[in-house]
Amino acid sequence: MSADDALAPTETSLARPIERSQDGTLRLLDQRALPHQERWIEVRTAEEAVAAIRALAVRGAPAIGIAAAYTIALIAEREGVEQARSAAHALASARPTAVNLGWACRRMLARLEACAGDGQDVASALASEADAIAHEQHAADRAIATAGAELVPPGGRLLTICNTGALATGAEGTALAVALEAHRRGRLAEVLVLETRPLLQGARLTTWELARAGVPHRLLCDSAAATACARGLVDCVFVGADRIARNGDVANKIGTYMLAVLARHHGIPFYVAAPLSTFDPATPDGRSIPIEERAPAEVSEFAGQAIAPARTKVWNPAFDITPAALVSAIVCERGVLRPPLATAIARVAGSAERSRRAGGAA
Amino acid sequence: MSADDALAPTETSLARPIERSQDGTLRLLDQRALPHQERWIEVRTAEEAVAAIRALAVRGAPAIGIAAAYTIALIAEREGVEQARSAAHALASARPTAVNLGWACRRMLARLEACAGDGQDVASALASEADAIAHEQHAADRAIATAGAELVPPGGRLLTICNTGALATGAEGTALAVALEAHRRGRLAEVLVLETRPLLQGARLTTWELARAGVPHRLLCDSAAATACARGLVDCVFVGADRIARNGDVANKIGTYMLAVLARHHGIPFYVAAPLSTFDPATPDGRSIPIEERAPAEVSEFAGQAIAPARTKVWNPAFDITPAALVSAIVCERGVLRPPLATAIARVAGSAERSRRAGGAA
Repeated sequence: MSADDALAPTETSLARPIERSQDGTLRLLDQRALPHQERWIEVRTAEEAVAAIRALAVRGAPAIGIAAAYTIALIAEREGVEQARSAAHALASARPTAVNLGWACRRMLARLEACAGDGQDVASALASEADAIAHEQHAADRAIATAGAELVPPGGRLLTICNTGALATGAEGTALAVALEAHRRGRLAEVLVLETRPLLQGARLTTWELARAGVPHRLLCDSAAATACARGLVDCVFVGADRIARNGDVANKIGTYMLAVLARHHGIPFYVAAPLSTFDPATPDGRSIPIEERAPAEVSEFAGQAIAPARTKVWNPAFDITPAALVSAIVCERGVLRPPLATAIARVAGSAERSRRAGGAA
Repeated sequence: MSADDALAPTETSLARPIERSQDGTLRLLDQRALPHQERWIEVRTAEEAVAAIRALAVRGAPAIGIAAAYTIALIAEREGVEQARSAAHALASARPTAVNLGWACRRMLARLEACAGDGQDVASALASEADAIAHEQHAADRAIATAGAELVPPGGRLLTICNTGALATGAEGTALAVALEAHRRGRLAEVLVLETRPLLQGARLTTWELARAGVPHRLLCDSAAATACARGLVDCVFVGADRIARNGDVANKIGTYMLAVLARHHGIPFYVAAPLSTFDPATPDGRSIPIEERAPAEVSEFAGQAIAPARTKVWNPAFDITPAALVSAIVCERGVLRPPLATAIARVAGSAERSRRAGGAA
């Protein structure tokens, strides 16, 4: 075991949101029930997987890509190549903003098409491809955690939104993996966790992961981020991403752009942590990223109980766009990308795209 | 009826959060139960009033001042001068941030001390004083609505936080009265209402008032304010205040400072609407304003149900400070105060203080 390995988290300390049963069924930790209940969902069909992704039983840009990949492999084995192909198309459009979903589905499809053999061969190739996507995520998360932890000043207080931990990637996480790594290295004083309305992924999931890992943290309302910055309680902001455009614009959980503006106003560095599978070379800038608008009831109800008057209309964008100009750096598995981001992204995404094409992916 | 009167809202269209029963009991509309239930609380003792104020059954800086004033009058009539005096002291410190509460209690105390007669005389003088405070609020709100509506551009979309309507002042409201007045004048396209975590005064109360008044509005999460600004959905921000310091720094509901930073970043005017009773000449700047931190359970629970893990610590400041430099103007009953705010405030607050002292208030 190398020194680096000794620093890596043990398997048992990390949440595992995606598992395969011995019978080949896909099991998803139902993230809607956390932190109070560890409930699992069994996925046997593409429809069940699409429903689980749409309902956010599984969530986080990398995790939904991995869940989709395993579903496609599962369908290939159980129902054959044709069904796997149509499952890949259905899954790719289950949610619009996170590019990892489309990326994983395209990669699985490319492998499928490249296999000219019988059903069994395709199924086994797709199972390998899904495993490869999951394993690459582990490697990416480790590299992101390592590079990102260097950006946390000694004794630093880190502010974050949503959940970007093991639950969101199926591995270590992105922004939250940075926090955990900084904690392991003894340089993290505290994580300030925004509750992340409307679905409270910060209050429910990030706190749960931090508590499991023994990392000091406090929970606050999204609207309190500004005063936290003004009071000097924040040394750096770390967020994940659902899609990064070619120019460095970042789509991420609603509230991220608020943090970017606040960070700039207060002179606090604003970092985005994301694997290359979140970079979308096909999207020139943030205006081209489709922003999912989710059901009004997510805002107007809580646990099935109405909050607002029935007549009141709701605007519920699930994501926002942070312009590249507000991003201090992007941390990916290739290291820390500094402005000008378009240039830095072209360098790493271009090479990623080439290696992907060389591997046969579309 | 003059043309101005015709523009004023009818009594029936406004919510009335504070009433006196025929037997002299104070009745408070329990704002915790809105919008689903119109439940009333009867207040007969100072302890009951303090509890109602702390629990936010009655809330809004002006409204808690008026509720306290009527409570003091009630106690004077029922229990005598000594009890009224001690009620005034207890009520003044029921909540720390809104200055109207201390202001109303000091004013009632000053009237009490100035009355050298028997118990009955003091009680009747205090009843008149409480009525005067309430009536002055009506006049102030009307003047604020009139002056503020001029600041809304034709076809304007107004963004607001918390509740600053009739429920918050016992009259027409402050920032929300501006929106309603702009609507009556046909110049308001829409109000964007931030839900206002953790207690959802925007989602529960502001939407309820806007729906009653037939004003087009949409509800959004606090964290979506930034993207609303970036998408050009906001023409002006109007907020209330709990205390305005001598230099123009503004204490208001948590999230207000976020809006001020966002408004500045996007070149959107940021207006504060508040009566002179919210101005505190004794407070030099925002650093001197005590910020109430409320119970963790307001954030970590919803309707008694835990959201976050039990071990997770919460930071729950109820207010934040917006520095004067981010305020485009303050709208009060004397009109629109423009920067430099310290100078403008000295002019109106000085004259208000002189007329208050001439009336015998401390």
